[in-house]
Amino acid sequence: MIGEPPDAYVGQEFSTRHSAHKAGVHRPLQAGICGTKATGAESIVLSGGYKDDEDYGNVVVYTGHGGQDSSKNQVADQTLEDSGNAALVTSYLEGLLVRVLRGAHKDSKYAPKSGYRYDGLFRVTSYGSKLGIDDHLIWQFRLEACEGTPIPAPVEAAGLPAVDELPFEGDSDQPAAGSETPDRVTTTVQRIVRSSVVKRQVKAWHDNQCQVCALRIEVPGGSYSEGAHIQALGSPHNGPDITANVLCLCPNCHVMLDAGAIVLSDDLIVIKAGSEMGPLRTHPRHKIDLNCVRQHRERWRQ
Amino acid sequence: MIGEPPDAYVGQEFSTRHSAHKAGVHRPLQAGICGTKATGAESIVLSGGYKDDEDYGNVVVYTGHGGQDSSKNQVADQTLEDSGNAALVTSYLEGLLVRVLRGAHKDSKYAPKSGYRYDGLFRVTSYGSKLGIDDHLIWQFRLEACEGTPIPAPVEAAGLPAVDELPFEGDSDQPAAGSETPDRVTTTVQRIVRSSVVKRQVKAWHDNQCQVCALRIEVPGGSYSEGAHIQALGSPHNGPDITANVLCLCPNCHVMLDAGAIVLSDDLIVIKAGSEMGPLRTHPRHKIDLNCVRQHRERWRQ
Repeated sequence: MIGEPPDAYVGQEFSTRHSAHKAGVHRPLQAGICGTKATGAESIVLSGGYKDDEDYGNVVVYTGHGGQDSSKNQVADQTLEDSGNAALVTSYLEGLLVRVLRGAHKDSKYAPKSGYRYDGLFRVTSYGSKLGIDDHLIWQFRLEACEGTPIPAPVEAAGLPAVDELPFEGDSDQPAAGSETPDRVTTTVQRIVRSSVVKRQVKAWHDNQCQVCALRIEVPGGSYSEGAHIQALGSPHNGPDITANVLCLCPNCHVMLDAGAIVLSDDLIVIKAGSEMGPLRTHPRHKIDLNCVRQHRERWRQ
Repeated sequence: MIGEPPDAYVGQEFSTRHSAHKAGVHRPLQAGICGTKATGAESIVLSGGYKDDEDYGNVVVYTGHGGQDSSKNQVADQTLEDSGNAALVTSYLEGLLVRVLRGAHKDSKYAPKSGYRYDGLFRVTSYGSKLGIDDHLIWQFRLEACEGTPIPAPVEAAGLPAVDELPFEGDSDQPAAGSETPDRVTTTVQRIVRSSVVKRQVKAWHDNQCQVCALRIEVPGGSYSEGAHIQALGSPHNGPDITANVLCLCPNCHVMLDAGAIVLSDDLIVIKAGSEMGPLRTHPRHKIDLNCVRQHRERWRQ
């Protein structure tokens, strides 16, 4: 259920949460976050329920769930134990896309005038905690519109910041949606890791523990690893996109695998600078394609 | 001189190498690669000089420099010691954009009919070595057109593969330029690292050695690190894009810094899970802004 909903289009309006639910945009009828720590967040609702929220159209600062009384005052600290907050951390760590539903409210000029509107896919680009306006700890998640997600036309109102005042995150994967062409001269992409169903399966088998160095990177609310193709996809390498051609690695070992600083022997010993470093960590359900191992090794035969 | 040339547009044709030189597209008059290990590759020329080259329009498999006789036969092994080849490795490691100039030749349907044509910015997405057609070791670099770089109209000819036969690299940072919308449901960006002048300066001071764990990732032809903002850019963190707010880190420590698994004390001690891990590595010219350090630490006050 991650990604574009099958029966709704970006910009589609819904008179009620129930109709957005039926269209598969946001399934819960009450909760603002749909998802769990295991699955990541499918969707969120921006409807002005949290005083610390910020909405810049293509960038949203979204306050996590919990700690409010019935009058929407923050009366207790939020935690990452909360299932919805943990879901957003998983979305950050896994790079999952999150559907955003905006509801009518007065604090955002990007909110619809009434009801709800599906505003497309966003990505969680950072998160952190702070003392909120009500002096309790809150968790906040920065979400950025994905490439191709349009910015809704703003409703002009006094006291709201103009769009062009806003600074954007230099580490995001793209210029803010709808902005001008990025400065391709001074800022370039150094490294990108794509996530996919195949990679997620391998990472799940190994529970984010690196198959080369055994490190599991623990961060507040989760752990992190990367899926790495052994034999690279695309010409000239033409590796297959199957679990038998993917390893679960920490980012450092991923960089080294991709650049040939580590290779594998046919009996799955890790070789670094010509020296055997020890066996690759394995999982009973994770078969490795030795043809891919050989193709990768041959790529660095200097 | 990296990036778009000031006096040329994508698709512009040049009758000679000299006119492409004058326009700042490709400065050398003979060499196919412009650049050094220190600077990265500014530009390359695709003109059919190497039998193992492949040209798919938006993806190019480019053979490195060296080892040829005057009849363009490969008579010796290529190496990464060659300045041009080393430049392309730097472009890969740093994520630098490379200008591509295509020259007329019969082996690519994307080549111009005569003279040369500037075909825009590409990125090196992988590299490796293999035995070439002439049975000597060659290095090859896969380059992909950047977003916004158009594919030239192909000249149809017998024996050349059709565009839609080609598989593309799943790990690239974007769908191939000119292709359909990416599958946003199943493949998402997990992590992206942007490079910039500010980050490159910090990485140069530290010679790619991680300021937290002291690791320098060595790969064939170079070493790798990442520039990491301490206080994140953009709302709600709003950190400045200055060297005093950037650290040189290995990818693993970068992930941990971004997700609050490591923070710094005001006397620049690295703190991981509440324990002091030792001092941050420093460089005399690299001042750290303690305000940024505090803002980052406060972001993880749970």
